[in-house]
Amino acid sequence: MKLVSYRRDGKPGFGAVAGEAVVDLSARLPGVADLASLVADAAALAQARQIVAGSSGDCPLAQVELAPVIPRPGKIICVGINYVAHAAEAGRTVGEYPVIFQRYAQTMVAHGAPLIRPAVSGHFDFEAELAVVIGKGGAHIAPENAMQHVAGYTCFNDASVRDWQFHTHQYGMGKNFRGTGALGPWLVTADEIPDYRELTVQGLLNGESMQKGKLSDLAFDIPALIAYVSRALDWQPGDILATGTPSGIGFKRQPPVFLQPGDTFEVVIPGVGTLSNPVVNEEA
Amino acid sequence: MKLVSYRRDGKPGFGAVAGEAVVDLSARLPGVADLASLVADAAALAQARQIVAGSSGDCPLAQVELAPVIPRPGKIICVGINYVAHAAEAGRTVGEYPVIFQRYAQTMVAHGAPLIRPAVSGHFDFEAELAVVIGKGGAHIAPENAMQHVAGYTCFNDASVRDWQFHTHQYGMGKNFRGTGALGPWLVTADEIPDYRELTVQGLLNGESMQKGKLSDLAFDIPALIAYVSRALDWQPGDILATGTPSGIGFKRQPPVFLQPGDTFEVVIPGVGTLSNPVVNEEA
Repeated sequence: MKLVSYRRDGKPGFGAVAGEAVVDLSARLPGVADLASLVADAAALAQARQIVAGSSGDCPLAQVELAPVIPRPGKIICVGINYVAHAAEAGRTVGEYPVIFQRYAQTMVAHGAPLIRPAVSGHFDFEAELAVVIGKGGAHIAPENAMQHVAGYTCFNDASVRDWQFHTHQYGMGKNFRGTGALGPWLVTADEIPDYRELTVQGLLNGESMQKGKLSDLAFDIPALIAYVSRALDWQPGDILATGTPSGIGFKRQPPVFLQPGDTFEVVIPGVGTLSNPVVNEEA
Repeated sequence: MKLVSYRRDGKPGFGAVAGEAVVDLSARLPGVADLASLVADAAALAQARQIVAGSSGDCPLAQVELAPVIPRPGKIICVGINYVAHAAEAGRTVGEYPVIFQRYAQTMVAHGAPLIRPAVSGHFDFEAELAVVIGKGGAHIAPENAMQHVAGYTCFNDASVRDWQFHTHQYGMGKNFRGTGALGPWLVTADEIPDYRELTVQGLLNGESMQKGKLSDLAFDIPALIAYVSRALDWQPGDILATGTPSGIGFKRQPPVFLQPGDTFEVVIPGVGTLSNPVVNEEA
């Protein structure tokens, strides 16, 4: 299933994408509060599958306003420097532990919504990534059990403000500008991806390929990342784990390439989807 | 006013502390959803003051289960190395920009609740701080207008897992362990603190003074911090800004001092309050 959160006629809802239509699951599963609750509930998910199988859709996908998959996840955990070739371009090596940083839910935008090029910086860069959506929460998860906690996958653009990212030794605000974290278009449930390591992630700027990586090349794989974080903090349903970006980011190019108003950046993960966002200048 | 969020008989509420009693404001201001909404609403705050003036309290403070002031803030922004003496002990200098890192709301505990010493680390350290609670949100706030956005102040213990904090060059999970961010006991409204620079913050381990700093010694003062962040991301009502810890933290002592089960750590800010938390081991 492809699951989405959205607003329809101004009201929040969630549902499944069937072709070019949306099946409204929120109306048919009144005991389920939101998509984060749905992906944590195996019985409700099974019910959702039956509903989708018997429905031709309630409205065109184009008629709903998509949310960034999970509208307000409890946490978004990002991983830096997790492809060896990207570590090399960033002048880093892969160490013993994953490089973890945090993003606020407030910074997220949906598929199709504009990425906001900041008023205070022109160093606005792209980072195409695969993101994991957590279904079942848990603490101290062993790597061999970690994939049971994955509800599904989506595309992520961890757009970053490079000069601010390096204002100090902590990435801090450079990874947390308004309107810079694009997530979507939908969550593809884990049953549709037998082996995530076969996925490829590509980043396209105005249709031109800038980044490409294969998920089998992650320095820390998804089970290792889920396990590491869970030793510190419980995973909760709807949490997002962004797995890191492959090489080819803009600010390490010669000359550097930064996102400009009018650009479109796409994160393409065949089997998962294409996340597309235009770039606009922050309004004064 | 001293404002608190709490659960009473299992139900969430918010109110004001009057002596040893709580005035239930949530029951009397049914249009106000929570404490974050109250501090953003000048008219509701004025009404709250009138209610408190005419009330002798609804129940003893000891009978409510306090929440960490704002139960689920949209963001908790922490500042590192913001006292010159602490920068020196950490082997850092104060640079041109504040060192910003992020904490998840999920890691927070209330006054009186246990700080959880992790199963995976004995390097569990304390950081006494003054925290600001944002009232009025905003973007691109000028330093000279920044104090208008402060709803009030509270005490914060940014308890940190030092070995994990330095697993990589990003603080990452070391600042985001379960049950490690204590906030409280209450929010003292800004009108009661004519000049925050006159405040002192002290950290006491089992009654013994470990840390002491004066808020006039901040390398980046509160207006500068509010302004800096607001260029990147809008402040929203109920957001928390932790202003950094003074020198005296445990892991830079000779020999190092780490929090042990049975310890009590207090953050004392005269005029604001005393935040006290026992330390327990994480349960297996």
